[in-house]
Amino acid sequence: MATATGLLAAIADVGVDRVRGGYSRHGFDRDELALREWFVGEATARGLDVEVDRNGNIWAWWGRPGPDAVVTGSHLDSVPGGGAFDGPLGVVAALAAVDGLRARGFVPARPLAVVVFAEEEGGRFGVPCLGSRLLAGTIDPDAARRLRDRDGTTVADAARAAGLDPDRMGRDDEALGRIGQFVELHVEQGRGLVDLGRAVGVASTILAHGRWRFRFTGEGNHAGATPITDRHDPMLPASRLVLAARSAASALPGARATVGRLVPVPGGTNVIASTVDVWLDARAADDGTTRAVVADITAAAREAAAAEGCQVEVTEESYGDTVFFDPVLRDELAGLLGGAPALPSGAGHDAGILAARVPTAMLFVRNPTGISHAPAEHAEPADCEAGVDALVAVLAHLAGDGR
Amino acid sequence: MATATGLLAAIADVGVDRVRGGYSRHGFDRDELALREWFVGEATARGLDVEVDRNGNIWAWWGRPGPDAVVTGSHLDSVPGGGAFDGPLGVVAALAAVDGLRARGFVPARPLAVVVFAEEEGGRFGVPCLGSRLLAGTIDPDAARRLRDRDGTTVADAARAAGLDPDRMGRDDEALGRIGQFVELHVEQGRGLVDLGRAVGVASTILAHGRWRFRFTGEGNHAGATPITDRHDPMLPASRLVLAARSAASALPGARATVGRLVPVPGGTNVIASTVDVWLDARAADDGTTRAVVADITAAAREAAAAEGCQVEVTEESYGDTVFFDPVLRDELAGLLGGAPALPSGAGHDAGILAARVPTAMLFVRNPTGISHAPAEHAEPADCEAGVDALVAVLAHLAGDGR
Repeated sequence: MATATGLLAAIADVGVDRVRGGYSRHGFDRDELALREWFVGEATARGLDVEVDRNGNIWAWWGRPGPDAVVTGSHLDSVPGGGAFDGPLGVVAALAAVDGLRARGFVPARPLAVVVFAEEEGGRFGVPCLGSRLLAGTIDPDAARRLRDRDGTTVADAARAAGLDPDRMGRDDEALGRIGQFVELHVEQGRGLVDLGRAVGVASTILAHGRWRFRFTGEGNHAGATPITDRHDPMLPASRLVLAARSAASALPGARATVGRLVPVPGGTNVIASTVDVWLDARAADDGTTRAVVADITAAAREAAAAEGCQVEVTEESYGDTVFFDPVLRDELAGLLGGAPALPSGAGHDAGILAARVPTAMLFVRNPTGISHAPAEHAEPADCEAGVDALVAVLAHLAGDGR
Repeated sequence: MATATGLLAAIADVGVDRVRGGYSRHGFDRDELALREWFVGEATARGLDVEVDRNGNIWAWWGRPGPDAVVTGSHLDSVPGGGAFDGPLGVVAALAAVDGLRARGFVPARPLAVVVFAEEEGGRFGVPCLGSRLLAGTIDPDAARRLRDRDGTTVADAARAAGLDPDRMGRDDEALGRIGQFVELHVEQGRGLVDLGRAVGVASTILAHGRWRFRFTGEGNHAGATPITDRHDPMLPASRLVLAARSAASALPGARATVGRLVPVPGGTNVIASTVDVWLDARAADDGTTRAVVADITAAAREAAAAEGCQVEVTEESYGDTVFFDPVLRDELAGLLGGAPALPSGAGHDAGILAARVPTAMLFVRNPTGISHAPAEHAEPADCEAGVDALVAVLAHLAGDGR
């Protein structure tokens, strides 16, 4: 019977990022494909029936596929230089929970499935939860197919190379219709459980959040030969945007705004940039606050661009309103888990996408530092196994014993 | 008889950068090696004797090598996304000038050489004028061998792959001792000649200038899950540095400070960066002003880092004091060229490195917009040929007719 920690150890060598530290595993890249293959092997070894849907999400079925299935799972991709737990913990906990249920002789009365969603982080193609968005129909498949990675490869090309037919991507009511309830287990991305002294919690909400790309265009020129007064340097408004993001988010309680990706072009030390791309990640408890933060930052960016004689073009790359997880299911699971605390999530999840279509819940596993999306992300082995035990209890409760 | 424009057309397809626009040709990369091979072919076809020195600079000799040779030339590498003229114009003008001298039956009384210096822009390994610095002994060869490109390849590895013995790199008094005078022709990087209505000028000085790397270290974490008050985001002090560079340079007449390269690590949209590397290019008329600008910026960077709970580490990657070109040679050439105007250069050049060791001059060719280090860099064909004519006159004058 596998443990979550043991299964994580089995994939510890895949996608190690020797430059950034941690892991870089991105949708349909070599490492993510290796992890998908590994998952198929683990599922098959457990006698689960594996299928890949039209959007590249992998389903491993215990029992005949849907309807009214109990589904659990997460994703195997990471942010660039991410941790070992965000995503994989939910997948390995699902596999370990299947083992746990079998060990107690459990036979599900309803079909049960473990799912692996594609490109959850958007680390390669920019849009987070790409696989679940396509499945749920919350992204236009034409727009999705055209998304490009940093090397110019499109989603369509990457999907085709992975053996999918990109023309078939898009809303999949058949696959969705099989889900009765979806439960995603995830490492906590914060210190809520640490502060409460609990190993496992349930999710209440996900912040409204989105990504915006600001492209500042100025005039590329020589860093030494161009007098200061002749410059139209897009790095100036780009830097003002970073500072405005901090001020705008600080002014509104609970709001968050971050620039973690900024690319000056051409990027030479002795060259005034001609364009700078800046990606803004902004979040808040509700749509109105999130939109207000982004409006403040956009106004500051436009003003700074104009002051430098630069242009700015703003593109909303993704957006999702606040997610309220099904309160009945949340309270039912919290009760089942001995009064597990309900915590809001600052991070987005595939569960947040599915919550709009099917009753959905999340389980969180304690993270001793709260750090996530970084190599230092961690969960103690005992807490991981507490998560597996919780998932076993939840799946047994929801699927019902058919013996 | 080749024209400068015709020779530039012959290399127009090498190193085209389809992402940034313009050209990306960097020391010892595939494209720069192709250009070097092309140069060797052109020189050999002209009956010049080609040799590569211990530091990767290529010399093409008309007559027996040194001493007291008249040397001209420039470089073939570019900044990332650079123009077609910065570097190559000086090389093709030298080849065209050899043709021009021969066409008039000229036989040099002193040896004459065309030189191509290696990695002038520092676009690959970070230190500008690497080939001429090594030759002149103004960089420690151990430090030079250890420089790395963005992929981690060292100068030693790249030089070895290009057929050099990196252990033999370093000051080369034999090669230097053969130079009687050095004259580099270059596209102007500014609008001095446009404003004066002249096609060709001579150089008076080069600004004191250097490059500094600021590494800000904070705490990588999740962009959505980390409250603003818990953050140590190195993008904040990095952005303050960009703004401080502008203020510091604006406060001191003629000073220039630029950030054209900034790399957040890991660089994910939904990730607070753990480190940010920022490269500062700073210049001014004299050492004192340049140092004062850098000190102001450094103080602002340290203060901003402390305010965010981040660390900062500052490394001087290169520095060169003001260059005053040999005034006798400068006035002699200006007179020979019908009172060509003398212009200061904001840009660094191999001629600036050699000026410390041998009598050195530069010729500038008019640039209609003044733009350089960008795809829009330009010189009209007629002005390029005026530059060749000027170089023919200068070489004939300096080398003396041995008929």
